[in-house]
Order: sequence, then structure tokens, then C-alpha cells
Amino acid sequence: MSRLSVFGLEGIPEITVGADLAGIIADAAAAGDDTALADGDVVVVTQKIVSKAEDRLVPVDPDDPLSHKPLVERESVRILRRRGDLIISETAHGFVCANAGIDLSNVEKGYAALLPVDADRSARRIRDGLRHRAGVKVAVVVSDTFGRTWRRGVTDVAIGCAGVAGVVDLRGTPDALGREMQVTEVAVVDEIAAAAELVMGKSTGIPVAVVRGVDPTWLRDGSVHDEIVRSPRDDLFR
Amino acid sequence: MSRLSVFGLEGIPEITVGADLAGIIADAAAAGDDTALADGDVVVVTQKIVSKAEDRLVPVDPDDPLSHKPLVERESVRILRRRGDLIISETAHGFVCANAGIDLSNVEKGYAALLPVDADRSARRIRDGLRHRAGVKVAVVVSDTFGRTWRRGVTDVAIGCAGVAGVVDLRGTPDALGREMQVTEVAVVDEIAAAAELVMGKSTGIPVAVVRGVDPTWLRDGSVHDEIVRSPRDDLFR
Repeated sequence: MSRLSVFGLEGIPEITVGADLAGIIADAAAAGDDTALADGDVVVVTQKIVSKAEDRLVPVDPDDPLSHKPLVERESVRILRRRGDLIISETAHGFVCANAGIDLSNVEKGYAALLPVDADRSARRIRDGLRHRAGVKVAVVVSDTFGRTWRRGVTDVAIGCAGVAGVVDLRGTPDALGREMQVTEVAVVDEIAAAAELVMGKSTGIPVAVVRGVDPTWLRDGSVHDEIVRSPRDDLFR
Repeated sequence: MSRLSVFGLEGIPEITVGADLAGIIADAAAAGDDTALADGDVVVVTQKIVSKAEDRLVPVDPDDPLSHKPLVERESVRILRRRGDLIISETAHGFVCANAGIDLSNVEKGYAALLPVDADRSARRIRDGLRHRAGVKVAVVVSDTFGRTWRRGVTDVAIGCAGVAGVVDLRGTPDALGREMQVTEVAVVDEIAAAAELVMGKSTGIPVAVVRGVDPTWLRDGSVHDEIVRSPRDDLFR
């Protein structure tokens, strides 16, 4: 029977520019109680610590809560909606989200964190590092917190991945009654990011979680950019 | 340390009209290997079996793959987009999804399954039944598979819940650096539905999964209708 285990890694220190995330994650996993990484694990890393390690912090006026708004315009290739201070825009990566993914929470006062330049690449780098540091073949997902249309509340989604599929294509797989299925492309990488968020919380200082037990057929080369980002041409809401 | 376990329940038979879902779920959980339900579990039930038990099947022409399209129009209160055969519309419940949530997969040929009339109520009924049948105080989520704007692939989300929060409000909770957080309302009920989908697949005949270990403070009265459905007035994309 398929059984997943999802747990956070404790003891990750405050991340600074140039930090060796793979080493830090490997150490935290090894130090924890029954959290040592194993082949097939999916390691979910929040965007914020990736952005910090990759020096994506930009100084802003610490006394002006809207001082990052010019950055939002700069990081956007298309503005979809504005309401009050909220901007919904498309980033250079093709993500559509609030404020171009820039935010101030869990960042030192006076700085704003931009999204990683290429979070698939960030995920690959952490994955390679974990193979070298911990001798394990894991997948890595970089997650961020996005709002959705039509539904209240935010959820975590993937902005980058390595070693795990973005989308699993069940087109043509017979359904449980043996009939031909209609198109069903499941965004498993986003569901993995959502599952990880359940053990992270937003203010508990758990920026890395492990999802253990996913279907091994999903553990292939994957990319959020190539598989998840929908092109404006195929999009009905842009 | 927070640790979740997510597992599917095997042995759920084909569901027919009037089926006692709580009894069937309790029996399947008790029969499984280490799957007996416990207080605090969140039981995630896919919409399809709820619709079947609640007699939400409608006969359609078995030889016409588009025969359910008039139903889509009937079940919609607002059409947002059309492209080819695809209709994105708002249902009477306030959900915005493809084809008013009606589909033909995993339904006997010649029938289409409509959404439950009130999936929060469906969840409450299953929850009450599980308390009587298995003597456990669990939460219940009714899940369905929706597409998203801007991102490819579908994910499971909640269309009803009972005994668990839809949204957990972290407004004002200090972030990890001790600063006042900005608004963060996390749609934990949708993240729970997504996590459950990871062990269900789409064609493996696992229509019920259990998410064990969620934050006990989330286990309160909850409602997808009241907490998750965004009113058109507050929506930037309708």
C-alpha cells in the first residue's frame, strides 16, 4: 500500500548569502530524530532560503511598507490586475502571482526577497549537492506560497524541481471502471509542495520538509518551467 | 516534531446509490494493515463516491462523448470562458471549474456525475457516521480534481469539509524573524486534499485516504463554502 510520510527538518539556521544549502540540509537531516535522507525522498525547500542563499535580497526603505512596489514592476513582464496595493503580475519566469513573488516576511528588515532566477536550476544544484554530501539520490522541489483565483487562502506550489516530475500524464490510462480516461495531467509537484507546507507552517522556522514514499515512477527528470508554467497562448485568463 | 502520515484505504467496493459511506470507510479502515482510524485523523473522500452515494448520477447518451454538455450549462450560474468543448463556469456552489465539475470518468457508461448539492453537509454526515460507527472523532474532507489558471495540470482541492478548518489565519502571527507578518491565510483544507491525492492516483481505485498528524488547532468547525469560496465581489478574475 502506498503510504507517505511528511516531516520537517528542524535546526536549519538563518541562511545567509552563499550558504551551502545542500550541506546545511544534509546536516539537519542527519542530526534529527529519524530524519536521515534516503533514496527516493523528495526534499522540499522554501523559496525564501533559496533566494537568501542565492543573494536575491534587495535593500528597501525599512520604514516604508510599500518600498518594494517599484521592484514588483521591474520584476514583472505583464501586469494582470491591480487593486489597491495588490499587483497580480506575470514574472519573467512565467509565474502569475501577487507582487511578482516578492515579499518581506521572514527577511531581515530593510530587505525584500526576489524569486530565484531559475528555481529548476536551484533545485538541481541542491539535489547534486545532497548526492555528494549525503550520498543519497533524492528529488528536490523549491516551493513558494501563491494565491489562487476564485478560492480564498494561499497554498504552497512548486517554482522549481529536479528529479521529480512536474506533471504526471494519465492520458489514456484506463480508469477504475476500465474505460478510457479523459485527459488527466496531475501536477504532482504542486501537490508535493502543498503536502510539505502542512508541516512547515509559516512562522515555525521549518523551511525544509521531506516527503517520503512518493510513487517511484514519478522520480524522473522534471521541470516546473517546462511542465507547469502555462504559456499565455494556452491560457484563458491572461 | 510535526510528522504527517498519508495513506489510502484499500478494499472500498464500487459505491451505489444510498451506500452508507461512513460504514464502508470504517470497515475498510478496520480491515487494512495499520489503517484503523484514530481521533484527529482527516479522512479525505473523493467527490465521485459521494456523488454516487447521494444519487447525483444523471443518464446521458452513452455514445455521445459530449452528451453531458447541456448538463454543464444547467449546473452553471455563470460561464467564464469557452474554448472548443471546454467550458469554465461557476456553479451554484460558487466553485469555478471546468464543466461545472461534471465528468464521466470512473462512472458507469451512460451516466454523468454531478457535484454533491452541499459537500460541507456531505462531509458532516460522513463525519457523524464515523463517530457512530467507529467511535472516532475525525475530520472529513470531500475532494475533487480542478484545473488552475496559469499553471498546467490538475490538483485535488476540497469542495467540502467538516471538523477541520478551511483556512488557517496567520494574520499578525510573528514570522520567524519576529516581525509582524503580512496577511497569510493558508488554505490548509486544500493542501490536505492535495496531499491525499498523492496516494490515490486517478485509476487505482483508492477513493479514500487518511491524513494523520495535522496540527490539532486546525481541527475545528470548518466549511469550504464559508471559508474557501471567494465571492465574485472580492474576485479579480470574474
